[in-house]
Amino acid sequence: MILPLAVAMGDPAGVGPEVTAKAWKARELHSLAPFFAVGDERAIAAVWDGPTIRIFDPEEAAGVFSTALPVISVADMGEITPGKPDVDGARCALQSLELAFGLTRSDAAGGLITGPVSKAQLYDIGFTHPGQTEFVAERCGVSSENAVMMLAGPTLRVVPITVHVALADVPGLLSVELIVAKARVTARGLYRNFGIEKPRLAFAGLNPHAGEGGAIGREEIEILRPAIAQLRDEGIDAVGPFAADTMFHPRGRAGYDVAMCCYHDQALVPLKTLHFDDGVNTTLGLPIVRTSPDHGTAFGIAGKDEANPGAMIAAIRMAALATQRRAELAAAGTP
Amino acid sequence: MILPLAVAMGDPAGVGPEVTAKAWKARELHSLAPFFAVGDERAIAAVWDGPTIRIFDPEEAAGVFSTALPVISVADMGEITPGKPDVDGARCALQSLELAFGLTRSDAAGGLITGPVSKAQLYDIGFTHPGQTEFVAERCGVSSENAVMMLAGPTLRVVPITVHVALADVPGLLSVELIVAKARVTARGLYRNFGIEKPRLAFAGLNPHAGEGGAIGREEIEILRPAIAQLRDEGIDAVGPFAADTMFHPRGRAGYDVAMCCYHDQALVPLKTLHFDDGVNTTLGLPIVRTSPDHGTAFGIAGKDEANPGAMIAAIRMAALATQRRAELAAAGTP
Repeated sequence: MILPLAVAMGDPAGVGPEVTAKAWKARELHSLAPFFAVGDERAIAAVWDGPTIRIFDPEEAAGVFSTALPVISVADMGEITPGKPDVDGARCALQSLELAFGLTRSDAAGGLITGPVSKAQLYDIGFTHPGQTEFVAERCGVSSENAVMMLAGPTLRVVPITVHVALADVPGLLSVELIVAKARVTARGLYRNFGIEKPRLAFAGLNPHAGEGGAIGREEIEILRPAIAQLRDEGIDAVGPFAADTMFHPRGRAGYDVAMCCYHDQALVPLKTLHFDDGVNTTLGLPIVRTSPDHGTAFGIAGKDEANPGAMIAAIRMAALATQRRAELAAAGTP
Repeated sequence: MILPLAVAMGDPAGVGPEVTAKAWKARELHSLAPFFAVGDERAIAAVWDGPTIRIFDPEEAAGVFSTALPVISVADMGEITPGKPDVDGARCALQSLELAFGLTRSDAAGGLITGPVSKAQLYDIGFTHPGQTEFVAERCGVSSENAVMMLAGPTLRVVPITVHVALADVPGLLSVELIVAKARVTARGLYRNFGIEKPRLAFAGLNPHAGEGGAIGREEIEILRPAIAQLRDEGIDAVGPFAADTMFHPRGRAGYDVAMCCYHDQALVPLKTLHFDDGVNTTLGLPIVRTSPDHGTAFGIAGKDEANPGAMIAAIRMAALATQRRAELAAAGTP
């Protein structure tokens, strides 16, 4: 039995509280492991009339989970109106993230699931990380090239090797060292968190048609091929680079466990095209398990009972499986 | 009744002859308008045992179409072995393209469908265009910014504003003028060839999250927004720029008639993810109708009876509908 999972609900005015509550409601249908919400109880009450119970320690969660959604509450910060973000809400979201992370990092919770936050609001209160992924990595003491953002849906996993940078900066940021580092972490993460013994990593080229042998761009020849060769020398099943546009149809996807992409949209476009409602964002390379539903705060539909909890449910399931898997590795003495 | 359509079969060692023959075989199922193949008859005989009939003028095609696949043959160039491309095959493909184009341009054929060619082989015989699209545009006397490559499947149409260029060159090539020119041609083409009265054009941003208000790239602010504003001033229904990764899921696609993308993979990745087997490549802005199945020569499966004719059938249907539509506009005196 794994420790209960911590769900930081994200921005209290977004859909985070609603999808957390809806996930709890669907706990039996999806055989969800016990979890508890971290955030402002009032944010749940504003959008849901089901049962909640305030707890003060994660170890209380499992005992009450079958009858009510357990909540570890943060201090009240101000009025909460679904769909109306403000700086108080951002403070609440940040405090929820800090608390849920701390409980997970200190082994009081089994894994961390982070709900959607508003970056614009967080920047207003002095949050300086590009996103929650970078925040969590830094708190874990893991450098950015060794923390890997992977997006996963039922039929596709993708890793963007560069993430939140202008497209013009992507070619200059790609290097053999960066690609090798990200791929090593990805291969190890797919083993440790997903139980894939020998993960198959397929690389997308940077340029159209993967550069056509150098005719339209040389990064495939000068950066990607040497990186892939090095990874293969290390025993990692890395292949490519392939023309990105031929990698994501059903037969293409059958050939690998993860598509390693050069930049944000090359990875996120196919993932969200296929799995907009059930994609999960997870961070590999951390000492903790961390997942997140791959959608935003959706302020426009907050409080209208329209939010689809599919991605939150998938994020909780993925966190539970990864936590279970890591516990088994630890019990077996495997690092 | 439209004039018969000309199908240039492409490389004789690729799957072009096979999918052309299979399309003819499926002519009744898909209510295909009469067409004729242009290429080497022996390439068909090597992969298909159905009936063909050699014709010498497109006007013979309609009369024989119900009983055999009409073929206008080019000179024999050498041995043909499916799956084994060579320079003779490239010469055959180029001659087929030249002939089929000439018949269409001179109004002997109603529209042009071009089968897959091997660019590497064509370059070896001195072909200097990036692809068939550019060849056809130049032969029509249309400048590159006024010829638009659009890819279309049953649920998505995309236009890459820049095409076969290295990713590093994309930001520098984007300009208000280029975007406006491509969008005007696209809007007009959707009206003339597809019968969409007031086409809705949605623009993808260049950068992740469409630049997040300038935080990760300024092309959205400095180039895309002014271009979209100018198009709206001209009465074109242009919107965006949007985060590319949220544009291609089913609800996203319902909001526009065509996604205008900044570069090749931004357009081609979602299109081929969704429509790998039935995507059509068409050129807008030309005096003729031109379509092409959106797949390559597939030398690896040529001659094995494994090629899916779905895209060729879709390309023939699209060409027929566009030709019909243009004939109606001409008859009505509409330019």
